[in-house]
Amino acid sequence: MHNQKKIITQEKILTGDRATGQLHLGHFVGSLQQRVKLQHEYEQTVLVADLQGLTDNGHNPHKVSSNILNVVADYLAVGIDPLKTTICLQSAIPALAELTMYYSNLVSVARLQRNPTVKNEISAKSFGRSIPTGFLTYPISQAADITAFRATLIPVGDDQLPMIEQTNEIVRKLNHIAQDDILVECRPLLSKMPRLPSTDGKCKMSKSMGNCILLSATDKDISKAVKSMYTDPNHLKIEDPGQVSGNVVFTYLDAFHPDSTFIDELKVRYQNGGLGDGTTKKILEECLQNTLKPIRERRDVFMSDKAQLIDILRMGSQKSQEESNQVLNNVKRALGLNLFN
Amino acid sequence: MHNQKKIITQEKILTGDRATGQLHLGHFVGSLQQRVKLQHEYEQTVLVADLQGLTDNGHNPHKVSSNILNVVADYLAVGIDPLKTTICLQSAIPALAELTMYYSNLVSVARLQRNPTVKNEISAKSFGRSIPTGFLTYPISQAADITAFRATLIPVGDDQLPMIEQTNEIVRKLNHIAQDDILVECRPLLSKMPRLPSTDGKCKMSKSMGNCILLSATDKDISKAVKSMYTDPNHLKIEDPGQVSGNVVFTYLDAFHPDSTFIDELKVRYQNGGLGDGTTKKILEECLQNTLKPIRERRDVFMSDKAQLIDILRMGSQKSQEESNQVLNNVKRALGLNLFN
Repeated sequence: MHNQKKIITQEKILTGDRATGQLHLGHFVGSLQQRVKLQHEYEQTVLVADLQGLTDNGHNPHKVSSNILNVVADYLAVGIDPLKTTICLQSAIPALAELTMYYSNLVSVARLQRNPTVKNEISAKSFGRSIPTGFLTYPISQAADITAFRATLIPVGDDQLPMIEQTNEIVRKLNHIAQDDILVECRPLLSKMPRLPSTDGKCKMSKSMGNCILLSATDKDISKAVKSMYTDPNHLKIEDPGQVSGNVVFTYLDAFHPDSTFIDELKVRYQNGGLGDGTTKKILEECLQNTLKPIRERRDVFMSDKAQLIDILRMGSQKSQEESNQVLNNVKRALGLNLFN
Repeated sequence: MHNQKKIITQEKILTGDRATGQLHLGHFVGSLQQRVKLQHEYEQTVLVADLQGLTDNGHNPHKVSSNILNVVADYLAVGIDPLKTTICLQSAIPALAELTMYYSNLVSVARLQRNPTVKNEISAKSFGRSIPTGFLTYPISQAADITAFRATLIPVGDDQLPMIEQTNEIVRKLNHIAQDDILVECRPLLSKMPRLPSTDGKCKMSKSMGNCILLSATDKDISKAVKSMYTDPNHLKIEDPGQVSGNVVFTYLDAFHPDSTFIDELKVRYQNGGLGDGTTKKILEECLQNTLKPIRERRDVFMSDKAQLIDILRMGSQKSQEESNQVLNNVKRALGLNLFN
C-alpha cells in the first residue's frame, strides 16, 4: 500500500494551453478543475504554449503575445496554485526548441502527414495548400515538451491520443540510440468529463464566434450568453414537452449546478411540458453568476498586477529551464554532442 | 574610396560544413582556400554544422559527433585562424534552434517541397518515402544560421542559390511583421572555382567510395589515390594522343600545380601523344605531396591536443551565442515575446 502510493506520487503531469485567447467555461470543465485537484496529488507542470500558438498564427503573433498573461491570470483565478503547480512559458525554455530539432531527424514527413489529429486540424483550419511547417511538425514539438519535463501522465481527450503515440515513438527511438532509458514514456490521463458544448450548440467554442463564456465574463456577458443559449428548437410553448438531450441549458446545468437531484426533477418537468426556457435559463444564469463571480474577481486582482504575473511565470520558467536542460544534456550526450560538458 | 572600403568591411560572411566526415581536397579547392583569404578582408564565421549533419544521420549520430574535431583540425591545418575567423559549433548555439522554431511558422510545407536544392538532394539520397522531417526543413534551419549571425555574404555554389532565396523570404516576412529591419538580407558570394572532380571522375566525392583525398591523407594514401586516378580511358599506349578534358589528373594539376605554363606544355604533349599517364601521375603525386605534407603535419599537431581544439570551438561558440542571442531577442521582441526582458 505504501509502495503504491509512492508510485503514484512519482508520476509527473504535463498539461497546458495554447496562448491564443482567454480561457472559457469549456476549459474550466474540461481541464482547469481537474488541474486544481491534480496539483494536490501529483507533481504538475502547466505550459503556456505560446510557441504552439504561433504555429497557426505566424503572421499574427499579437494574438499569442497578448494572451499570455490572460491565460496565467485564468489559471490563478480558478485556483491553480503556483506553489503547487509549475506554471511556465514555452518560449522561455530554449531546450524545448533544441530537443525539437534533434527529434525532427527521427520522424519522417510521411509519419507527420499520417497523424490523425494533425490531419483533422489541418482540414478544419482551411490552410489550403499553405500549411505552415511549424503546424505540420507540432507533434514533434509536443514530444519535446513532454519529454523535457519527464512527464509520465498527460491529460488529454481521446482525439489527442495520436500525440501520445508519436511522443512514445520518439522516446523509444532515442532510447535505442542511447542504449539507455534517457527519456520516459508517457501515458494518457483520459478526461471523464464530456466536452462542454458552445452556447449555440455547435461543436467548437470560439471567442470570435461569440459562443463561449469566458472566465472573465461580466454579469452582463453571462446574462446575454445564457439568454441566447441554444435549447430545444421545437419547444415553442411552455406547455409543450421539451427535449433535454442536446439542450445546451441542461448540459450546462449538469456541469455547473451543485444540486443534481434538483436538476433531475427540472428535467422531468421540462420533458413533460409546462416548464419554460425562461425559467431554466434563469436558474442557469444564477448558477453561472455564482460560479464565475469569485473567479472573475480574483482574475481582476491578478490582472491588476501584471508584474506579479510575470514574476510567477518567470519563476516557473526558470525551474523548467533547469529540468529541461538536464534532459537536453542527456540527449546531447547520447548523440555524442557533449564536447563542452 | 574611403567610403567604399568601409562598406566592404561591414559585410559579414557565414560559411561552414556539415560535420559528417573529414574534409578533403574538394573542400580545399572549393571553399577552404577562399576562407583563408576572406578572413583578412571580412568578418567571417565558420559553422561546424553538426545539427545539419544529423538531418540525414538521425539514427547514426556517431558519424557526426566523431567528426566535429576532425573538421576543426582541418580548418586550422589549412590556415583558418581562430583569431581572425570565428569557428563555432551549431549545436552549442541554442538561439539557432529557437529561431528555426519561429521561422517554421512563416514557411509552408509546400514551399519547402518546391525547394530545388532539397528536391535534388532528396532524390539523390534514396530516403524512399522516409524523408526525415529535419531534412525537409533544413533550409529553415539554414535561414536561422544566416540571420542569427547577421551574415550578408554567403559563399555558395549556384546549386545553393535557392537557400539564399528561402532565407531572404523569411527575412522579409519577419521584417514585415516587425515593421522594422530587424533581420538582414544576404547575398551569394558565388565561387569562381569549378568543382573538383572525385578521383574516379564520378560526380560526388565520398570517403566511403574511396574517391577523394582527405587533408589527412598519408604519403601512401596520396600515392594510391593518384595511381588509381581516372585519366583518358582511350589513351592506351604512350604514343597515342590523349584527352585532357575530363582527365582527372590534368584537372588536379590545374588546381594544384604552381606552374601553369609548365602544365600547359604538358597538356600539349599529352594531346599530341608521347606522354604517358605514369609521367603525369608522377608529377601530380609530387605536387599533391608538397601541398598536403605541411597541412597533414599541422593537422597532426592539432589533433594531438583535443583540449585545445575544444577550447577554440568553445570560445567561438560563446561569441556566437552572444551575437545570436541579440538577434533572437530582437525577433522575440517583434513577436511580443519579450515578457522577461
